[in-house]
Amino acid sequence: MREAELMKVGEGYYRSIWYDTADHGSVHVIDQRKLPFAFEVMTLRNVSDVYEAIREMAVRGAPLIGAAAAWGVYLSFIEHNTRAKNSGDIEECRAHKKKGNREHICADDVYNAVISDAQLLRSARPTAVNLAWAIDYMTGVLKNFPDAEVLRRAAEGLCDEEAERSRLIGVNGLPVIEAISSSKGGETVNILTHCNAGWLACVDYGTALAPVYLAHDKGIKVHVWVDETRPRNQGSRLTAWELLNHGVPFTLITDNAGGHLMQNGMVDMVIVGCDRATASGDVANKTGTYLKALAAFDNGVPFYSALPVSTFDLSVDRPEQIEIEERDAGEVSAIDGIRIAPEGVHVSNYGFDVTPARLITGLITDRGICRADKESVLKTVS
Amino acid sequence: MREAELMKVGEGYYRSIWYDTADHGSVHVIDQRKLPFAFEVMTLRNVSDVYEAIREMAVRGAPLIGAAAAWGVYLSFIEHNTRAKNSGDIEECRAHKKKGNREHICADDVYNAVISDAQLLRSARPTAVNLAWAIDYMTGVLKNFPDAEVLRRAAEGLCDEEAERSRLIGVNGLPVIEAISSSKGGETVNILTHCNAGWLACVDYGTALAPVYLAHDKGIKVHVWVDETRPRNQGSRLTAWELLNHGVPFTLITDNAGGHLMQNGMVDMVIVGCDRATASGDVANKTGTYLKALAAFDNGVPFYSALPVSTFDLSVDRPEQIEIEERDAGEVSAIDGIRIAPEGVHVSNYGFDVTPARLITGLITDRGICRADKESVLKTVS
Repeated sequence: MREAELMKVGEGYYRSIWYDTADHGSVHVIDQRKLPFAFEVMTLRNVSDVYEAIREMAVRGAPLIGAAAAWGVYLSFIEHNTRAKNSGDIEECRAHKKKGNREHICADDVYNAVISDAQLLRSARPTAVNLAWAIDYMTGVLKNFPDAEVLRRAAEGLCDEEAERSRLIGVNGLPVIEAISSSKGGETVNILTHCNAGWLACVDYGTALAPVYLAHDKGIKVHVWVDETRPRNQGSRLTAWELLNHGVPFTLITDNAGGHLMQNGMVDMVIVGCDRATASGDVANKTGTYLKALAAFDNGVPFYSALPVSTFDLSVDRPEQIEIEERDAGEVSAIDGIRIAPEGVHVSNYGFDVTPARLITGLITDRGICRADKESVLKTVS
Repeated sequence: MREAELMKVGEGYYRSIWYDTADHGSVHVIDQRKLPFAFEVMTLRNVSDVYEAIREMAVRGAPLIGAAAAWGVYLSFIEHNTRAKNSGDIEECRAHKKKGNREHICADDVYNAVISDAQLLRSARPTAVNLAWAIDYMTGVLKNFPDAEVLRRAAEGLCDEEAERSRLIGVNGLPVIEAISSSKGGETVNILTHCNAGWLACVDYGTALAPVYLAHDKGIKVHVWVDETRPRNQGSRLTAWELLNHGVPFTLITDNAGGHLMQNGMVDMVIVGCDRATASGDVANKTGTYLKALAAFDNGVPFYSALPVSTFDLSVDRPEQIEIEERDAGEVSAIDGIRIAPEGVHVSNYGFDVTPARLITGLITDRGICRADKESVLKTVS
């Protein structure tokens, strides 16, 4: 990695995930639950650590979930392969099996053991398609090349490619911002975003925020309206923190406020990320995205979703085919352990919603901007 | 007041505001900032107390703000009139004035002093029209009858009428719920509401919640989706508390969730309150209402606003003529003193938005349900 590819945090430069050969070959991530109040690097030593980090949202964001899962498959292989190597010859294997020692693993069993871990990993979050996509990629490599070095390179390659896809999303989205900027005679372009689809959600750059960073770095005046994004406040915690660190002007708002701003000409465009897009161009993204798309449509504000093509799930072409994750009630009824609703209330907490293609101006991908319709999506992906 | 007119809280029955002759003629309110975690009754002894209670949202909700302001005018009169009575004869008045004693007040000055207080009171919150309406009513009475007993009865009458208007809103809205219930063969009617437009927001019964209470009490199966309503969480704090106390089934959701629920047939109707309605039927209400109206419209879900006719402001007929209050940044960046965004972020916090008439199925008023258009509004109000 070149330094220029990394995002600045204080005086250092970071990606959201990296492999550390020095530290016994472990994987490091930024614990995003602690941001913006603490910057803590978390070490993932095995597949269970990865599962927990995804499940508990220490890492989140569709592309980063995929990247973490790829490392999860790698760590699973290392673990089982090491145990298999240490498990001795076939006679010894038989003796272990006879004793019912489930901890014992034969060399032949490594593949199945990793596949079993991968199944668990796949269940950590149901909506983001990148998770399944990355796992399928890694288990495909494993099947043909059951080798630690090959798998390590595959995971590293997947991360590098993810970063490059994000950079290309930035490159492809930049002209949209430039066009609005020049139509306003160089005045500030006001961009509303929901949740966090910045570099923290990806490996680098971001999806929705990639064009914003590139525009800002190029000297185009931009200002971001940051939806706080209840219940987990990824906007006020993560997007705000990213933009602060990068020096991009922004204003924090509640999720309720965007409609009023759009009605009053205070938003020039909306860009959000994407957790899964259908072949028809419908976009599953953080809960509340659909409401912003409606407001954008009602006020003639262009609405874009930014995503790598790996986020398309061509096996589905209708919104209702996407499984929407239901998360814990405690995310809504308490913040940082402080209750904000009476005891005993019943809570519903769907993590995502689906914005129908008809409300979407365009999909900004690493392969260019496509219309949110089947023809254009298939042409872009294939 | 008859007990049957009061809302149950634990084993007691309450209105949201009441006058207490025993306690030196002071006014009592429930401190709504403390709910649902503490039930504290707050005493308002003078017009400054009333101003602070409205400004700091110890009392909130358009009808209750009006009721509190009416008592504010009364308390202002009592204070100035008592001082004037004590101030002796005209010679003494002249002496005080000569000395520049600003504390001194002549009988002739009482009216002007109250009007001056009323002006301040009017500035406490800019969006809800009931505030100005109640103050105008009370100062009108004052002009003709500068008498403590008359003013007390006027304020009390205003509260009773407000309660009666809420009851009538319930009566008029009930058939809408009944119709949906019977179209579903008696299955549960799922009603989404935003903010708190229950009895806490009014003197009694509520506006949006009045039909819900009446339906529930009549044995119709209802279930309420309660938007938490950031940034002040009137939904999770107040609406949830009201419904818990009254035994109405409900589920707490984030403000982001309603769109997904409506897309998936989980909402049968939306009812919200109103802080000011234009002559054309546009509705200013808590920020985020517009987004829910868009989602309701997009999914064919009926969207109602419930309001007493005193909430119509016939002097305006376009959304942009309504002043939208901007509130403190701290409401967004912290909850109960706990920061939820990084230090130093810029925050925008508009308290309301305006839902255009075209998205509104009907306005449930104390004089019946009217369409959200000028002809129907003027016919209802006049």
